[in-house]
Amino acid sequence: MNTKAKGTKGERELVKAFNEAGWACFRAAGSGSSPYPSPDLIAANAIRRLAIECKVTKDKKKYFEHGELEQLRIFAQKFGAEGWIGVKFSGEEWYFLMLEDLEQTGNLFAVSVELAKRRGLKIDEVMGKEEKSDSGNIP
Amino acid sequence: MNTKAKGTKGERELVKAFNEAGWACFRAAGSGSSPYPSPDLIAANAIRRLAIECKVTKDKKKYFEHGELEQLRIFAQKFGAEGWIGVKFSGEEWYFLMLEDLEQTGNLFAVSVELAKRRGLKIDEVMGKEEKSDSGNIP
Repeated sequence: MNTKAKGTKGERELVKAFNEAGWACFRAAGSGSSPYPSPDLIAANAIRRLAIECKVTKDKKKYFEHGELEQLRIFAQKFGAEGWIGVKFSGEEWYFLMLEDLEQTGNLFAVSVELAKRRGLKIDEVMGKEEKSDSGNIP
Repeated sequence: MNTKAKGTKGERELVKAFNEAGWACFRAAGSGSSPYPSPDLIAANAIRRLAIECKVTKDKKKYFEHGELEQLRIFAQKFGAEGWIGVKFSGEEWYFLMLEDLEQTGNLFAVSVELAKRRGLKIDEVMGKEEKSDSGNIP
C-alpha cells in the first residue's frame, strides 16, 4: 500500500471511530488539491467542531510546513472549528495535537512520537469522553 | 460530460461561491458511497453551518427518496447544522430548499422548477446576505 492509500485508510479509521461514538464525521474530497483551505476531516457534534489534518507515517518524527498549518488555522477560524493535527506513527495509536503544541525547528514544525505522547490527546480524549461520568447519560 | 461529472462541477461552483463570500466550504469525499451519513457539501461561517445535498438536473422536476433525505436530516442533527437541498435546473440559478419545503408524492419527495422558484432561496439569500445593510460592515 502506498503512502496516499495508507493516509486514506487512516482517515477512514477515524471517520468510523467518530461516527461510532455518535459524532458526525466525514472526509473532504481532494483536500490537498482544492484551491480553498480544507482539512482532511471534519468531525462534529452539537457542541464542538473539529477540523483535523491527518498524517500516517513510518517515521519517528513528522514535519509540517508553515503554510500547511496556516491553511488549517484559516479554515478553522472561518468555519468556527477547532484546528487539530492527527498523527499516527507505526505501532502507535492516533494522537491529536493543537497547532501550538507542535515544535518549531527553523521554518518547519514537527511532532515526534515522544512529543505526541507527552502533549497529544488520544481519540477518546479529543472527543471529551474522559470528562463524562461512567453512565455517560446526560439528560 | 456525464451526470456525475456535471454534479461534481456544480458542487465546485458552490464551493467557489461560498469561499469567495468569506465562508469555509468543501466537498465530502464519496458522499454517496460512505457507510456513514454525509452531505455533498458543508459550508459554515462562525455563526451558521449548512449541510447541503446537491443536485444538478436536466429534468423539470427532481425526485428524492425518503432515505436520502432522512440521511441528511440525521447528519444535520448530529453535526449541529442546517440541512439544505441545493438544486440546479438547466438554465436556472441554484435554488436552496429546506427538507420540509419539498413536495411529497407517494413515497417520494420532489422539487420542481416552479416550487424551487416559489419556496427556494438563491445562494445570496441562503448565506443571509439579504439581511445585511448596503455597507455590510458589522463591527
